[in-house]
Amino acid sequence: MDKPLAISMGEPAGVGPDLILALYAKRVELDLPEFCVFGHADLLKARAARLGLDIEIATVGAPGTNAAFATALPVSHVEGLVPDNPGQTSPLSAAAVIRSIEAAVEATMTGECRGLVTGPIHKAALYNAGFRHPGHTEFLAELCAMGGKPRLPVMMLAHGGLRAVPVTIHVPIRAVPDLLTKQLIVDTIKVLAHDLKQRFGIANPQIGVAGLNPHAGEGGAIGREDLEIVGPAVAQLQFEGIGVEGPLPADTLFYPAHWARYDAVVAMYHDQALIPIKTVAFEEAVNVTLGLPIVRTSPDHGTAFDLAGTGRASYASFLAAIRMADAMTANQ
Amino acid sequence: MDKPLAISMGEPAGVGPDLILALYAKRVELDLPEFCVFGHADLLKARAARLGLDIEIATVGAPGTNAAFATALPVSHVEGLVPDNPGQTSPLSAAAVIRSIEAAVEATMTGECRGLVTGPIHKAALYNAGFRHPGHTEFLAELCAMGGKPRLPVMMLAHGGLRAVPVTIHVPIRAVPDLLTKQLIVDTIKVLAHDLKQRFGIANPQIGVAGLNPHAGEGGAIGREDLEIVGPAVAQLQFEGIGVEGPLPADTLFYPAHWARYDAVVAMYHDQALIPIKTVAFEEAVNVTLGLPIVRTSPDHGTAFDLAGTGRASYASFLAAIRMADAMTANQ
Repeated sequence: MDKPLAISMGEPAGVGPDLILALYAKRVELDLPEFCVFGHADLLKARAARLGLDIEIATVGAPGTNAAFATALPVSHVEGLVPDNPGQTSPLSAAAVIRSIEAAVEATMTGECRGLVTGPIHKAALYNAGFRHPGHTEFLAELCAMGGKPRLPVMMLAHGGLRAVPVTIHVPIRAVPDLLTKQLIVDTIKVLAHDLKQRFGIANPQIGVAGLNPHAGEGGAIGREDLEIVGPAVAQLQFEGIGVEGPLPADTLFYPAHWARYDAVVAMYHDQALIPIKTVAFEEAVNVTLGLPIVRTSPDHGTAFDLAGTGRASYASFLAAIRMADAMTANQ
Repeated sequence: MDKPLAISMGEPAGVGPDLILALYAKRVELDLPEFCVFGHADLLKARAARLGLDIEIATVGAPGTNAAFATALPVSHVEGLVPDNPGQTSPLSAAAVIRSIEAAVEATMTGECRGLVTGPIHKAALYNAGFRHPGHTEFLAELCAMGGKPRLPVMMLAHGGLRAVPVTIHVPIRAVPDLLTKQLIVDTIKVLAHDLKQRFGIANPQIGVAGLNPHAGEGGAIGREDLEIVGPAVAQLQFEGIGVEGPLPADTLFYPAHWARYDAVVAMYHDQALIPIKTVAFEEAVNVTLGLPIVRTSPDHGTAFDLAGTGRASYASFLAAIRMADAMTANQ
């Protein structure tokens, strides 16, 4: 019998718990794979009641998931004080949020679960409680390193076969050109190529690389970085036998028929990757973290405080994240 | 009877002449408005023969267009030596290319034609012949100023009701943050708001403004420009009664259902505007120049030298450019 997926509940004041509950309620109709929620059982009960969902909660942990899933939502309970206040973060709940992520990673690293889907967190709420990581993904990378040096985690946005990977992420546009180095691009694309093979079963991945500047710099007429940084990175990767092309003009790269010629497209900065994926798949894109020893996906949206507790949030992206984690671990 | 549209032939070694001829050949099927081509009659004859199109050429100029259009392609002939060498620019033809643009602008400024559609040019070929303008659009702005100070030309990419306007265009990403000033954003949006009313008949245009940085700067956490430049520009425009909102996170702004809530979206740099328009409308987007005393549209592609003379280039964008110029001048 398949190991379950692990789902961390994320920020309790956000829509994470709502969407997990809504999806569990439709598990038969949606033919969902079995999963265990790492989070606070009473919060989930209270949120289910608030949403009018008649869901039984079974605090059976990952090992009890297969037996429970048909009749009750399997939970790996994390102790803590977690009030059910949609839209209002609480310093009380931060420790439980962090602990639920740690427990979910541990269960996936040890093989109790076959992959991890994370609910959205609210970094500011965690920083106030002493969280010291730049983001969710870096925290996961550190947990997965188990005390060693974390690998480079690489963010990928995916919608079916359309995949985009930004080399730099949450930094100002002004900082992007100096952060882009040949080494960073090479390292990012090596992680990508490795995981396209390993996690997506693509034997010989073909990767397109967007230029930094308009028209990929027009041979140096519009900035030198595409000639001096992106081009040499691509050349080195080609020399090492990786199927990669670029720098390519970014504006014509993401038309779906072009995009689909590549197994993934690498962008130089946040909006260069996020604009096209959200333009073609606003509510259904999935955020996948590559470079980890485990499979990790998440919905491509935040905590949406204004929708928490209302029942009006769309579960489309969370559902897509579960399906992608399921597909990526189907052969394990 | 309607005045004709003016079409400048553009670079003779590119696909401009091909597409004009292909469209003329389908004028009945496509129900095209009447137009006059400003260009070289013998080049058009030779290209038509090369493409196997049985098209008569009538060098009747704009005034003779209405009478000729049903049976012959009306041409306002420009003297010069223009060889029919698809894919190979010639220093001989540059003067005729420039002169055809000048003549087409003049005919539109004087009212002989009601709007201008420009075929793609190849700047490098013109620079070698002494052309001194940074681009096609700036040249047009100067011609339209008739010796006075040119107005700020504003580039808009449009696909039906989805419209995107970049504030900065063909500059390196590294240069963008320092080029963005409150004044430039205000001036650009005033031209846009004016022309959305005047040229598109939108009584009270609503304009969305993208932030420069990821997540529109997250309140200053990811760069200061959205707080210090974009936000104040939006506030000033609102104070002046213009319907404008922003800075908005760029990645969620271009999902077609969101985008369509605005009559236009203003982007801070080339790829922020061009990626989404080409992602949703790769071959059908139109480039419109706002801020000119005349209507000017053009196809959203270049000279495509590899396709010139082959008959394989798509006329979709050129057709969309003609239809948009037609619609924008229907009430003149």
